[in-house]
Amino acid sequence: MPITKLEEAVLDEHFIKYSYVKGFTATQSDTALFLQFESAPHKDLPHLLRWYTHIKSFGSERLKFPGCKETFLSFSSNCTKVNIMVDKTLEEGEVVADGQQQEQTEDFVDPWTVRASSNKGIDYDKLIDRFGSSRIDEALLERFEKITGHKPHHFLRRGIFFSHRELNRILNLVEAGKTFFLYTGRGPSSEAMHVGHLIPFIMTKWLQDVFDVPLVVQLTDDEKYLWKDLKLEQCNKLAYENAKDIIAIGFDINKTFIFSDVDFVSGDFYKNVLRVQKHVTFNQVKGIFGFDESSNIGKIMFPAIQAAPSFSSSFPFIFGGKKDIPCLIPCAIDQDPYFRMTRDVAPRIGLQKPALIHSTFFPALQGAGSKMSASDENSSIFLTDTPNQIKKKINKYAFSGGKDTIEEHRALGGDCEVDVSYMYLTFFMEDDTRLEEIRREYSAGNMLTGELKAELIKILQNMISEHQERRKSVTDEVVKQYMTPRPLNFHSKS
Amino acid sequence: MPITKLEEAVLDEHFIKYSYVKGFTATQSDTALFLQFESAPHKDLPHLLRWYTHIKSFGSERLKFPGCKETFLSFSSNCTKVNIMVDKTLEEGEVVADGQQQEQTEDFVDPWTVRASSNKGIDYDKLIDRFGSSRIDEALLERFEKITGHKPHHFLRRGIFFSHRELNRILNLVEAGKTFFLYTGRGPSSEAMHVGHLIPFIMTKWLQDVFDVPLVVQLTDDEKYLWKDLKLEQCNKLAYENAKDIIAIGFDINKTFIFSDVDFVSGDFYKNVLRVQKHVTFNQVKGIFGFDESSNIGKIMFPAIQAAPSFSSSFPFIFGGKKDIPCLIPCAIDQDPYFRMTRDVAPRIGLQKPALIHSTFFPALQGAGSKMSASDENSSIFLTDTPNQIKKKINKYAFSGGKDTIEEHRALGGDCEVDVSYMYLTFFMEDDTRLEEIRREYSAGNMLTGELKAELIKILQNMISEHQERRKSVTDEVVKQYMTPRPLNFHSKS
Repeated sequence: MPITKLEEAVLDEHFIKYSYVKGFTATQSDTALFLQFESAPHKDLPHLLRWYTHIKSFGSERLKFPGCKETFLSFSSNCTKVNIMVDKTLEEGEVVADGQQQEQTEDFVDPWTVRASSNKGIDYDKLIDRFGSSRIDEALLERFEKITGHKPHHFLRRGIFFSHRELNRILNLVEAGKTFFLYTGRGPSSEAMHVGHLIPFIMTKWLQDVFDVPLVVQLTDDEKYLWKDLKLEQCNKLAYENAKDIIAIGFDINKTFIFSDVDFVSGDFYKNVLRVQKHVTFNQVKGIFGFDESSNIGKIMFPAIQAAPSFSSSFPFIFGGKKDIPCLIPCAIDQDPYFRMTRDVAPRIGLQKPALIHSTFFPALQGAGSKMSASDENSSIFLTDTPNQIKKKINKYAFSGGKDTIEEHRALGGDCEVDVSYMYLTFFMEDDTRLEEIRREYSAGNMLTGELKAELIKILQNMISEHQERRKSVTDEVVKQYMTPRPLNFHSKS
Repeated sequence: MPITKLEEAVLDEHFIKYSYVKGFTATQSDTALFLQFESAPHKDLPHLLRWYTHIKSFGSERLKFPGCKETFLSFSSNCTKVNIMVDKTLEEGEVVADGQQQEQTEDFVDPWTVRASSNKGIDYDKLIDRFGSSRIDEALLERFEKITGHKPHHFLRRGIFFSHRELNRILNLVEAGKTFFLYTGRGPSSEAMHVGHLIPFIMTKWLQDVFDVPLVVQLTDDEKYLWKDLKLEQCNKLAYENAKDIIAIGFDINKTFIFSDVDFVSGDFYKNVLRVQKHVTFNQVKGIFGFDESSNIGKIMFPAIQAAPSFSSSFPFIFGGKKDIPCLIPCAIDQDPYFRMTRDVAPRIGLQKPALIHSTFFPALQGAGSKMSASDENSSIFLTDTPNQIKKKINKYAFSGGKDTIEEHRALGGDCEVDVSYMYLTFFMEDDTRLEEIRREYSAGNMLTGELKAELIKILQNMISEHQERRKSVTDEVVKQYMTPRPLNFHSKS
């Protein structure tokens, strides 16, 4: 039955104090209550409206909120108590009848699954709204250039790193002559890294060069063991293999510490893991990561392991025990849930919230709507591919925005928004002028798909053969040096 | 409504295949179904009867099973499907109407709470039934003596260590000239240890002397941080303080490794923690330890930390990487849930199940039904007490089984079953003959409470002042030696 005016008023009062029906965690009670509304509450009830808009933004994900269904929800305000019957309920998997919106076609993003609803890929504006992060806009980039004296990297200029949390705070620090450190990572589930895996590392290396700051790189071999059907020894070995590719990107050995969780978790690092674990409940990780009662307890505790490198006190050999050196994390946006949790916990354990910059996802050759997988060798270009393999894969698999016949293409032009070869060029072609020229010519139909692909093939062949050359010189001894806990030399004006 | 014959038959078939209504974990569905029975099922339905008896044995603990209430439970057998309405349900805290049995007065035992229903203490026979362990009986003790050539310690002879899991397997090994190792531990939540804390360590030291085997002692400073309102640094400091008392008990430095989790968790130990974590779900720790959705994720993962020392591969510096050296754990029976879980996981990760011997609980001065607490200095005798404090506490607080007047006592005799001073003598008086004499004389009324207490005071004063002397010689340097990962020298016939 519809919500009455009285009920609405009591609910509005409830949401002054609480984020959700049951306090500060979204539960099935929110889902059940939400379904009683036929339209958004009036704007005279701002707290109820804020809650409604927030729950609406979850789309079908709200079916995954924790908790049981109830028949009545009770709310009270001063002397008034209302019992709201929540009679419309849905089974998991049913389509949410949410006005005219077809929610089953919405994007889905969590640290393990990225599913776009169209070939244009994820709607990143919606993601920023849902995650509550901020867009990296022109003003921020101008400030970045003013403070660092560097033209922002093309990943920043082209919206590949498109979202942030408190990048401004990092720039304030730099302006004030203070230092910070960088943290990024990789889950080593496969020996063969593909070009998409390079994105956060290319960004991070550039930031390290620009800011002259230390960097810690976490290899989550423990995570991969807990999630995948792999032996612990395999995951650990893959961490060391992947470290070679990471080192080959060119990180400064005097400023970079790479570690495998399996080998490094201990001491001050484990202390920070425990501090985070004490302040996060099962309900919270259930809400944030979608864990359930049959999740193994390793998965449940793991978010604390990914949180710990955000704190300088986890690395006393680098920071001499200082616990207040802020951290900037470049990562793909699917990793944000870990750091939302970290930012929530940090002040409660007397530590600094990490700042973040988020990248978009690197599309699979088959298109931004399909999944790139290290186990499907035709879904991406791998760092081990030969020039010939690169050429064949791009020509054969890269989803084209071109038209079916040359005549049609000349007449109507290609669609850069869905063309994977063009997308890859935005990642790997540094020359803005040439990229814009390609976009124009391809869209106008003057450039054919084969010509566009040839441009990309040339760039990738060079990039990958150079990477392979550099990787050859990364011996086990070099890996050992990067992975030894030790002081790092970095320039600090403070 | 009562269960029909048809329903009973279908249920009996269900319980051939499954341990519980929902498979292999007890849930609220078991509780709900159990309440439909007015009496035990007929013995012609052995599987249903087995389930009924098992669920009945949980007493009011069954209110803590995971899961939501349901209105109907469905079961099917071949072509027959029955829907059983489970209409009698109870809220947590209500008294279970379980026939004539008053379950609110049952004992409650988990690793954090021990609550006896009477001054005679816990009913250990019931506990053995419920936990599924075995009693240490005369035959086992005879075999122990035959194989070791040592008369069993009075803790074994007097049923203080009363229960075991696979002690026979350990004796087989010894008989075959093979070795094993000992593992025990302590949660350091207070600087002042009391005499009750000594029990597992006294037993362990004796076993170390008899078997000439290595010992690992885990100080769970991480656990205390996760459960108590203490800072991590405090818990870590307490671990080192407690280590001094443990060392003062006389463990052989060449055979003993003591470690603080906070400082030691890493490397091969962390690898075994991960292996355990991967094979235990939230539902399992919920069922075993009573965790719920608001438990912090540190608590949820912690059982794996207490499991890891059961495996020799956690200590490569002692066992040279051998992963098949069996472990014997002397502990109080409230710790058994951790090791039931460990024994369940061990074969699934290719490791040996630990064997256990379980002790009864050391009673508080106020009686076996009340709680001994390190924060109530009058509830026990502390290792820091002066001779005068010991005398005063025993005389003033030790619950007496004597009668109110001397005349009455002479006529009726004292009750050793509830007399705390007598109970303490069973722990600390080594002379069997003298102890039996005291029991006889006190029960007959020939010995008065004051005389009984004087015997105990003398023993405790000696024991504690000797302990204090030995502890003085335990310097920080000595602690460091015991707590350094290193090879241990031990005699192995294998």
